[in-house]
Amino acid sequence: MAKKAVVLLSGGLDSATVLAMAQAQDYELYALTVEYGQRHSREIRCARAQAKARQVAQHKVIRLELPDIRASALTDSTPLPRAQPGSAIPATYVPARNTILLSLALSWAESLGSVDIFIGATAVDYSGYPDCRPAFIEAFEKLANLATKAAVQDGKKFHIHAPLLDLPKHKIIERGRELSVDFALTSSCYDPDEQGRACGQCDACALRLKGFRQAHLLDPVRYA
Amino acid sequence: MAKKAVVLLSGGLDSATVLAMAQAQDYELYALTVEYGQRHSREIRCARAQAKARQVAQHKVIRLELPDIRASALTDSTPLPRAQPGSAIPATYVPARNTILLSLALSWAESLGSVDIFIGATAVDYSGYPDCRPAFIEAFEKLANLATKAAVQDGKKFHIHAPLLDLPKHKIIERGRELSVDFALTSSCYDPDEQGRACGQCDACALRLKGFRQAHLLDPVRYA
Repeated sequence: MAKKAVVLLSGGLDSATVLAMAQAQDYELYALTVEYGQRHSREIRCARAQAKARQVAQHKVIRLELPDIRASALTDSTPLPRAQPGSAIPATYVPARNTILLSLALSWAESLGSVDIFIGATAVDYSGYPDCRPAFIEAFEKLANLATKAAVQDGKKFHIHAPLLDLPKHKIIERGRELSVDFALTSSCYDPDEQGRACGQCDACALRLKGFRQAHLLDPVRYA
Repeated sequence: MAKKAVVLLSGGLDSATVLAMAQAQDYELYALTVEYGQRHSREIRCARAQAKARQVAQHKVIRLELPDIRASALTDSTPLPRAQPGSAIPATYVPARNTILLSLALSWAESLGSVDIFIGATAVDYSGYPDCRPAFIEAFEKLANLATKAAVQDGKKFHIHAPLLDLPKHKIIERGRELSVDFALTSSCYDPDEQGRACGQCDACALRLKGFRQAHLLDPVRYA
Protein backbone atom coordinates (compact mmCIF):
# COMPACT_ATOMS: atom_id res chain seq x y z
CA MET A 1 0.00 0.00 0.00
CA ALA A 2 1.34 3.41 -0.96
CA LYS A 3 2.38 5.80 1.77
CA LYS A 4 0.00 8.72 2.14
CA ALA A 5 1.09 12.34 2.04
CA VAL A 6 -0.86 15.50 2.78
CA VAL A 7 0.19 18.25 0.36
CA LEU A 8 -0.74 21.90 0.92
CA LEU A 9 -1.93 23.13 -2.45
CA SER A 10 -2.52 26.83 -3.00
CA GLY A 11 -2.95 27.04 -6.75
CA GLY A 12 0.43 28.69 -7.20
CA LEU A 13 3.31 27.19 -9.14
CA ASP A 14 5.36 26.32 -6.07
CA SER A 15 2.78 24.01 -4.52
CA ALA A 16 1.86 22.55 -7.93
CA THR A 17 5.52 21.55 -8.27
CA VAL A 18 5.60 20.14 -4.76
CA LEU A 19 2.51 18.04 -5.53
CA ALA A 20 4.33 16.62 -8.57
CA MET A 21 7.45 15.97 -6.47
CA ALA A 22 5.45 14.06 -3.85
CA GLN A 23 3.86 12.02 -6.62
CA ALA A 24 7.30 11.27 -8.10
CA GLN A 25 8.19 9.84 -4.67
CA ASP A 26 5.24 7.43 -4.97
CA TYR A 27 3.11 8.92 -2.25
CA GLU A 28 -0.64 8.57 -2.40
CA LEU A 29 -1.69 12.21 -2.54
CA TYR A 30 -4.12 14.04 -0.24
CA ALA A 31 -4.24 17.66 -1.33
CA LEU A 32 -5.41 20.35 1.08
CA THR A 33 -6.45 23.82 -0.07
CA VAL A 34 -7.48 26.44 2.46
CA GLU A 35 -9.62 29.40 1.46
CA TYR A 36 -8.88 32.09 4.02
CA GLY A 37 -10.31 35.12 2.27
CA GLN A 38 -7.84 35.54 -0.59
CA ARG A 39 -8.95 38.24 -2.97
CA HIS A 40 -9.85 36.06 -5.91
CA SER A 41 -11.00 32.57 -6.75
CA ARG A 42 -8.68 31.89 -9.66
CA GLU A 43 -6.13 30.23 -7.44
CA ILE A 44 -8.73 27.85 -5.99
CA ARG A 45 -9.69 26.82 -9.53
CA CYS A 46 -6.00 26.25 -10.31
CA ALA A 47 -5.62 24.11 -7.18
CA ARG A 48 -8.56 21.98 -8.32
CA ALA A 49 -7.03 21.61 -11.79
CA GLN A 50 -3.65 20.56 -10.37
CA ALA A 51 -5.26 18.04 -8.03
CA LYS A 52 -7.21 16.59 -10.93
CA ALA A 53 -4.15 16.43 -13.19
CA ARG A 54 -2.27 14.42 -10.55
CA GLN A 55 -5.24 12.16 -9.86
CA VAL A 56 -4.98 12.70 -6.13
CA ALA A 57 -6.75 10.27 -3.82
CA GLN A 58 -8.61 13.18 -2.25
CA HIS A 59 -8.65 16.98 -2.54
CA LYS A 60 -10.15 18.97 0.32
CA VAL A 61 -10.92 22.65 -0.05
CA ILE A 62 -11.76 24.01 3.36
CA ARG A 63 -12.95 27.46 4.29
CA LEU A 64 -11.22 29.17 7.17
CA GLU A 65 -12.35 32.37 8.74
CA LEU A 66 -9.19 34.03 10.03
CA PRO A 67 -9.60 35.91 13.32
CA ASP A 68 -8.52 39.15 11.65
CA ILE A 69 -8.96 39.05 7.94
CA ARG A 70 -7.79 42.63 7.52
CA ALA A 71 -4.25 42.04 8.68
CA SER A 72 -2.65 41.57 5.28
CA ALA A 73 -2.59 43.19 1.87
CA LEU A 74 -3.43 39.73 0.50
CA THR A 75 -6.85 39.73 2.11
CA ASP A 76 -7.85 43.32 2.81
CA SER A 77 -8.64 46.21 0.53
CA THR A 78 -5.50 48.30 0.94
CA PRO A 79 -3.48 48.91 -2.22
CA LEU A 80 -1.19 46.04 -3.16
CA PRO A 81 2.52 46.70 -3.12
CA ARG A 82 4.26 46.95 -6.48
CA ALA A 83 7.44 45.04 -7.12
CA GLN A 84 10.36 46.58 -5.31
CA PRO A 85 13.51 45.31 -3.71
CA GLY A 86 13.88 45.42 0.05
CA SER A 87 14.57 43.24 3.02
CA ALA A 88 11.48 44.00 5.09
CA ILE A 89 8.70 41.46 5.47
CA PRO A 90 6.23 41.96 2.59
CA ALA A 91 2.84 43.62 3.14
CA THR A 92 1.31 40.41 1.84
CA TYR A 93 2.40 38.60 5.01
CA VAL A 94 -0.65 36.96 6.66
CA PRO A 95 -0.17 36.62 10.42
CA ALA A 96 0.84 33.07 11.34
CA ARG A 97 -0.46 31.74 8.03
CA ASN A 98 1.90 28.80 7.57
CA THR A 99 1.50 27.82 11.22
CA ILE A 100 -2.25 27.60 10.66
CA LEU A 101 -1.92 25.77 7.34
CA LEU A 102 0.53 23.22 8.74
CA SER A 103 -1.70 22.69 11.80
CA LEU A 104 -4.64 21.84 9.57
CA ALA A 105 -2.46 19.57 7.43
CA LEU A 106 -1.19 17.87 10.59
CA SER A 107 -4.72 17.25 11.80
CA TRP A 108 -5.72 15.66 8.51
CA ALA A 109 -2.50 13.65 8.26
CA GLU A 110 -3.05 12.21 11.72
CA SER A 111 -6.63 11.26 10.81
CA LEU A 112 -5.42 9.55 7.64
CA GLY A 113 -2.62 7.66 9.36
CA SER A 114 -0.09 9.68 7.34
CA VAL A 115 3.11 11.13 8.77
CA ASP A 116 4.26 13.04 5.68
CA ILE A 117 3.25 16.65 5.05
CA PHE A 118 4.46 18.66 2.06
CA ILE A 119 4.55 22.46 1.86
CA GLY A 120 5.87 24.68 -0.94
CA ALA A 121 7.61 27.17 1.32
CA THR A 122 10.68 28.77 -0.19
CA ALA A 123 13.19 30.84 1.70
CA VAL A 124 15.15 32.15 -1.26
CA ASP A 125 13.07 34.64 -3.19
CA TYR A 126 10.54 35.40 -0.46
CA SER A 127 13.06 35.47 2.31
CA GLY A 128 11.05 38.16 4.04
CA TYR A 129 8.46 35.70 5.31
CA PRO A 130 9.40 34.43 8.77
CA ASP A 131 7.31 31.28 8.34
CA CYS A 132 9.16 30.20 5.20
CA ARG A 133 12.53 29.65 6.89
CA PRO A 134 14.21 26.33 7.70
CA ALA A 135 14.15 27.14 11.42
CA PHE A 136 10.38 27.53 11.29
CA ILE A 137 9.87 24.25 9.43
CA GLU A 138 12.10 22.43 11.93
CA ALA A 139 10.27 23.93 14.88
CA PHE A 140 6.91 22.90 13.44
CA GLU A 141 8.14 19.36 12.87
CA LYS A 142 9.28 19.19 16.47
CA LEU A 143 5.91 20.50 17.63
CA ALA A 144 4.04 17.95 15.51
CA ASN A 145 5.92 15.16 17.25
CA LEU A 146 4.86 16.48 20.66
CA ALA A 147 1.30 17.46 19.78
CA THR A 148 -0.22 14.30 18.42
CA LYS A 149 -1.51 10.96 19.62
CA ALA A 150 0.12 9.29 16.61
CA ALA A 151 3.56 10.49 17.72
CA VAL A 152 3.22 10.29 21.49
CA GLN A 153 1.17 7.11 21.88
CA ASP A 154 1.98 5.20 18.71
CA GLY A 155 5.58 6.29 18.27
CA LYS A 156 5.13 7.61 14.75
CA LYS A 157 7.39 10.38 13.49
CA PHE A 158 5.96 13.24 11.47
CA HIS A 159 8.05 14.74 8.71
CA ILE A 160 7.46 18.19 7.26
CA HIS A 161 8.78 18.14 3.70
CA ALA A 162 9.64 21.56 2.29
CA PRO A 163 11.60 20.53 -0.82
CA LEU A 164 11.68 24.05 -2.32
CA LEU A 165 13.19 25.74 0.72
CA ASP A 166 16.56 26.38 -0.88
CA LEU A 167 15.50 26.76 -4.51
CA PRO A 168 15.28 30.04 -6.42
CA LYS A 169 12.18 30.47 -8.58
CA HIS A 170 13.80 29.44 -11.87
CA LYS A 171 14.99 26.17 -10.35
CA ILE A 172 11.47 25.47 -9.12
CA ILE A 173 10.15 26.13 -12.62
CA GLU A 174 12.75 23.80 -14.14
CA ARG A 175 11.88 21.07 -11.64
CA GLY A 176 8.17 21.54 -12.35
CA ARG A 177 8.74 21.30 -16.08
CA GLU A 178 10.67 18.04 -15.66
CA LEU A 179 7.64 16.68 -13.83
CA SER A 180 5.18 17.94 -16.47
CA VAL A 181 3.48 20.54 -14.30
CA ASP A 182 1.02 22.53 -16.41
CA PHE A 183 2.00 26.08 -15.45
CA ALA A 184 -0.94 27.48 -17.40
CA LEU A 185 -3.05 26.10 -14.57
CA THR A 186 -1.22 27.95 -11.81
CA SER A 187 -1.88 31.41 -10.45
CA SER A 188 0.66 33.70 -8.84
CA CYS A 189 -0.71 37.21 -9.37
CA TYR A 190 -2.00 39.08 -6.32
CA ASP A 191 -4.27 41.22 -8.44
CA PRO A 192 -5.66 39.53 -11.59
CA ASP A 193 -8.25 41.36 -13.67
CA GLU A 194 -11.84 40.27 -14.20
CA GLN A 195 -10.87 37.91 -16.99
CA GLY A 196 -8.36 36.25 -14.69
CA ARG A 197 -5.35 37.78 -16.44
CA ALA A 198 -2.27 38.43 -14.30
CA CYS A 199 -1.27 42.06 -13.73
CA GLY A 200 2.42 41.53 -14.48
CA GLN A 201 3.33 44.19 -11.94
CA CYS A 202 2.87 42.91 -8.40
CA ASP A 203 5.67 41.28 -6.41
CA ALA A 204 4.44 37.81 -7.26
CA CYS A 205 4.20 38.49 -11.00
CA ALA A 206 7.64 40.10 -11.06
CA LEU A 207 9.19 37.13 -9.30
CA ARG A 208 7.40 34.66 -11.54
CA LEU A 209 8.33 36.45 -14.77
CA LYS A 210 11.95 36.69 -13.70
CA GLY A 211 11.95 32.98 -12.89
CA PHE A 212 10.62 32.03 -16.31
CA ARG A 213 13.16 34.31 -18.00
CA GLN A 214 16.03 32.74 -16.05
CA ALA A 215 14.71 29.25 -16.86
CA HIS A 216 14.56 30.25 -20.55
CA LEU A 217 10.88 29.36 -20.72
CA LEU A 218 7.74 31.21 -21.68
CA ASP A 219 5.16 31.70 -18.94
CA PRO A 220 1.92 30.28 -20.36
CA VAL A 221 -0.45 32.30 -18.17
CA ARG A 222 -2.20 35.33 -19.70
CA TYR A 223 -1.07 38.80 -18.70
CA ALA A 224 -3.20 41.94 -18.96
CA MET B 1 -3.01 51.52 27.83
CA ALA B 2 -3.78 48.04 29.04
CA LYS B 3 -1.87 45.12 27.58
CA LYS B 4 -3.99 42.98 25.30
CA ALA B 5 -4.38 39.23 25.70
CA VAL B 6 -6.03 36.70 23.42
CA VAL B 7 -7.84 34.08 25.52
CA LEU B 8 -9.08 30.81 24.03
CA LEU B 9 -12.60 30.39 25.40
CA SER B 10 -14.40 27.09 24.91
CA GLY B 11 -17.39 27.47 27.19
CA GLY B 12 -15.98 25.00 29.70
CA LEU B 13 -15.05 25.85 33.27
CA ASP B 14 -11.30 25.73 32.67
CA SER B 15 -11.23 28.45 30.05
CA ALA B 16 -13.82 30.52 31.96
CA THR B 17 -11.41 30.46 34.89
CA VAL B 18 -8.46 31.36 32.67
CA LEU B 19 -10.42 34.33 31.29
CA ALA B 20 -10.97 35.54 34.86
CA MET B 21 -7.28 35.00 35.68
CA ALA B 22 -6.21 37.07 32.67
CA GLN B 23 -8.61 39.81 33.73
CA ALA B 24 -7.20 39.73 37.27
CA GLN B 25 -3.79 40.42 35.69
CA ASP B 26 -5.24 43.58 34.11
CA TYR B 27 -5.13 42.43 30.53
CA GLU B 28 -7.57 43.86 28.03
CA LEU B 29 -9.38 40.70 26.94
CA TYR B 30 -9.85 39.39 23.41
CA ALA B 31 -11.74 36.11 23.64
CA LEU B 32 -11.56 33.58 20.82
CA THR B 33 -14.03 30.72 20.45
CA VAL B 34 -13.66 28.21 17.65
CA GLU B 35 -16.59 26.12 16.45
CA TYR B 36 -15.08 23.04 14.87
CA GLY B 37 -18.10 20.78 14.72
CA GLN B 38 -18.63 20.02 18.39
CA ARG B 39 -21.81 18.06 18.96
CA HIS B 40 -23.84 20.76 20.63
CA SER B 41 -24.19 24.49 20.84
CA ARG B 42 -24.55 24.85 24.59
CA GLU B 43 -20.83 25.44 25.04
CA ILE B 44 -20.84 28.26 22.48
CA ARG B 45 -23.67 29.93 24.41
CA CYS B 46 -21.65 29.52 27.61
CA ALA B 47 -18.60 31.07 25.96
CA ARG B 48 -20.70 34.08 24.94
CA ALA B 49 -22.05 34.41 28.48
CA GLN B 50 -18.55 34.28 30.01
CA ALA B 51 -17.23 36.85 27.54
CA LYS B 52 -20.14 39.14 28.37
CA ALA B 53 -19.70 38.69 32.13
CA ARG B 54 -16.04 39.74 31.86
CA GLN B 55 -16.84 42.65 29.54
CA VAL B 56 -14.20 41.61 27.07
CA ALA B 57 -13.02 44.15 24.50
CA GLN B 58 -13.96 41.71 21.75
CA HIS B 59 -15.26 38.16 21.46
CA LYS B 60 -14.78 36.34 18.17
CA VAL B 61 -16.59 33.10 17.43
CA ILE B 62 -15.12 31.63 14.29
CA ARG B 63 -16.22 28.58 12.37
CA LEU B 64 -13.54 26.12 11.37
CA GLU B 65 -14.09 23.19 9.10
CA LEU B 66 -11.61 20.55 10.22
CA PRO B 67 -10.08 18.49 7.42
CA ASP B 68 -11.47 15.31 8.96
CA ILE B 69 -14.36 15.96 11.25
CA ARG B 70 -14.91 12.27 11.91
CA ALA B 71 -11.62 11.69 13.66
CA SER B 72 -12.83 12.10 17.23
CA ALA B 73 -15.67 10.96 19.47
CA LEU B 74 -16.19 14.67 20.24
CA THR B 75 -17.27 15.43 16.72
CA ASP B 76 -18.46 12.22 15.11
CA SER B 77 -21.41 9.98 15.78
CA THR B 78 -19.67 7.04 17.47
CA PRO B 79 -20.74 6.28 21.03
CA LEU B 80 -19.12 8.46 23.66
CA PRO B 81 -16.87 6.78 26.18
CA ARG B 82 -18.16 6.42 29.72
CA ALA B 83 -16.00 7.41 32.64
CA GLN B 84 -13.28 4.87 33.26
CA PRO B 85 -9.73 4.97 34.49
CA GLY B 86 -6.88 4.35 32.10
CA SER B 87 -3.73 5.90 30.79
CA ALA B 88 -4.50 5.80 27.05
CA ILE B 89 -5.31 8.95 25.12
CA PRO B 90 -9.09 9.54 25.34
CA ALA B 91 -11.39 8.84 22.37
CA THR B 92 -12.38 12.51 22.58
CA TYR B 93 -8.91 13.53 21.36
CA VAL B 94 -9.27 15.76 18.27
CA PRO B 95 -6.21 15.48 16.01
CA ALA B 96 -3.89 18.47 16.51
CA ARG B 97 -6.70 20.49 18.08
CA ASN B 98 -4.65 22.67 20.41
CA THR B 99 -2.05 23.28 17.70
CA ILE B 100 -4.82 24.63 15.47
CA LEU B 101 -6.43 26.68 18.25
CA LEU B 102 -3.12 28.23 19.31
CA SER B 103 -2.26 28.99 15.67
CA LEU B 104 -5.49 30.92 15.25
CA ALA B 105 -4.94 32.72 18.55
CA LEU B 106 -1.41 33.58 17.44
CA SER B 107 -2.67 35.04 14.19
CA TRP B 108 -5.19 37.23 15.97
CA ALA B 109 -2.70 38.25 18.66
CA GLU B 110 -0.20 39.37 16.05
CA SER B 111 -2.89 41.38 14.26
CA LEU B 112 -3.87 43.06 17.53
CA GLY B 113 -0.30 43.85 18.53
CA SER B 114 -0.66 41.46 21.48
CA VAL B 115 2.01 38.98 22.58
CA ASP B 116 0.03 37.22 25.30
CA ILE B 117 -2.08 34.15 24.59
CA PHE B 118 -3.97 32.25 27.29
CA ILE B 119 -5.13 28.65 27.04
CA GLY B 120 -6.89 26.50 29.66
CA ALA B 121 -4.88 23.36 29.01
CA THR B 122 -4.40 21.16 32.02
CA ALA B 123 -2.01 18.24 32.24
CA VAL B 124 -3.20 16.82 35.53
CA ASP B 125 -6.63 15.27 35.12
CA TYR B 126 -6.57 14.92 31.34
CA SER B 127 -2.99 13.81 31.15
CA GLY B 128 -3.85 11.61 28.21
CA TYR B 129 -3.95 14.52 25.78
CA PRO B 130 -0.53 15.03 24.17
CA ASP B 131 -1.30 18.68 23.38
CA CYS B 132 -2.00 19.56 27.01
CA ARG B 133 1.52 18.92 28.27
CA PRO B 134 4.14 21.50 29.30
CA ALA B 135 6.50 20.29 26.55
CA PHE B 136 3.84 21.02 23.94
CA ILE B 137 3.14 24.51 25.30
CA GLU B 138 6.87 25.30 25.35
CA ALA B 139 7.33 24.02 21.79
CA PHE B 140 4.44 26.14 20.57
CA GLU B 141 5.83 29.24 22.25
CA LYS B 142 9.16 28.63 20.57
CA LEU B 143 7.41 28.19 17.23
CA ALA B 144 5.44 31.42 17.70
CA ASN B 145 8.68 33.31 18.13
CA LEU B 146 10.01 31.94 14.85
CA ALA B 147 6.80 32.13 12.85
CA THR B 148 5.76 35.76 13.11
CA LYS B 149 6.71 39.14 11.77
CA ALA B 150 6.13 40.63 15.21
CA ALA B 151 8.80 38.39 16.72
CA VAL B 152 11.29 38.20 13.87
CA GLN B 153 11.15 41.75 12.54
CA ASP B 154 9.97 43.72 15.55
CA GLY B 155 11.71 41.72 18.27
CA LYS B 156 8.55 41.03 20.25
CA LYS B 157 8.34 37.92 22.38
CA PHE B 158 5.17 35.84 22.46
CA HIS B 159 4.16 34.16 25.65
CA ILE B 160 1.77 31.22 25.84
CA HIS B 161 0.13 31.34 29.26
CA ALA B 162 -1.27 28.01 30.44
CA PRO B 163 -1.90 28.80 34.11
CA LEU B 164 -3.92 25.63 34.79
CA LEU B 165 -1.28 23.21 33.53
CA ASP B 166 -0.40 21.84 36.96
CA LEU B 167 -3.75 22.23 38.69
CA PRO B 168 -6.17 19.40 39.46
CA LYS B 169 -9.84 20.13 38.73
CA HIS B 170 -10.81 21.05 42.30
CA LYS B 171 -8.03 23.65 42.47
CA ILE B 172 -9.25 25.16 39.21
CA ILE B 173 -12.76 25.33 40.64
CA GLU B 174 -11.48 26.99 43.81
CA ARG B 175 -9.52 29.55 41.79
CA GLY B 176 -12.56 30.23 39.63
CA ARG B 177 -14.75 30.76 42.65
CA GLU B 178 -12.28 33.27 44.13
CA LEU B 179 -12.56 35.19 40.86
CA SER B 180 -16.38 35.01 40.81
CA VAL B 181 -16.68 32.75 37.78
CA ASP B 182 -20.35 31.82 37.30
CA PHE B 183 -20.04 28.05 36.88
CA ALA B 184 -23.72 27.79 35.98
CA LEU B 185 -22.69 29.36 32.69
CA THR B 186 -20.08 26.73 31.84
CA SER B 187 -20.54 23.47 30.00
CA SER B 188 -18.41 20.36 30.39
CA CYS B 189 -20.68 17.47 29.37
CA TYR B 190 -19.90 15.70 26.11
CA ASP B 191 -23.48 14.55 25.74
CA PRO B 192 -26.10 16.94 27.15
CA ASP B 193 -29.79 16.19 26.57
CA GLU B 194 -32.17 18.31 24.52
CA GLN B 195 -32.85 20.62 27.45
CA GLY B 196 -29.11 21.21 27.80
CA ARG B 197 -28.83 19.11 30.97
CA ALA B 198 -25.51 17.36 31.57
CA CYS B 199 -25.50 13.55 31.44
CA GLY B 200 -23.48 13.10 34.64
CA GLN B 201 -21.86 10.00 33.20
CA CYS B 202 -19.29 10.92 30.55
CA ASP B 203 -15.61 11.42 31.35
CA ALA B 204 -16.01 15.19 31.46
CA CYS B 205 -19.01 15.06 33.82
CA ALA B 206 -17.27 12.57 36.10
CA LEU B 207 -14.18 14.74 36.33
CA ARG B 208 -16.22 17.87 36.93
CA LEU B 209 -18.40 16.30 39.63
CA LYS B 210 -15.36 14.92 41.41
CA GLY B 211 -13.74 18.36 41.28
CA PHE B 212 -16.75 20.06 42.84
CA ARG B 213 -16.93 17.37 45.55
CA GLN B 214 -13.25 17.82 46.39
CA ALA B 215 -13.69 21.60 46.43
CA HIS B 216 -16.68 21.15 48.79
CA LEU B 217 -18.93 23.07 46.43
CA LEU B 218 -22.17 22.32 44.66
CA ASP B 219 -22.05 22.24 40.87
CA PRO B 220 -24.75 24.68 39.75
CA VAL B 221 -25.32 23.15 36.29
CA ARG B 222 -28.37 20.97 35.76
CA TYR B 223 -27.94 17.22 35.44
CA ALA B 224 -30.40 14.87 33.76
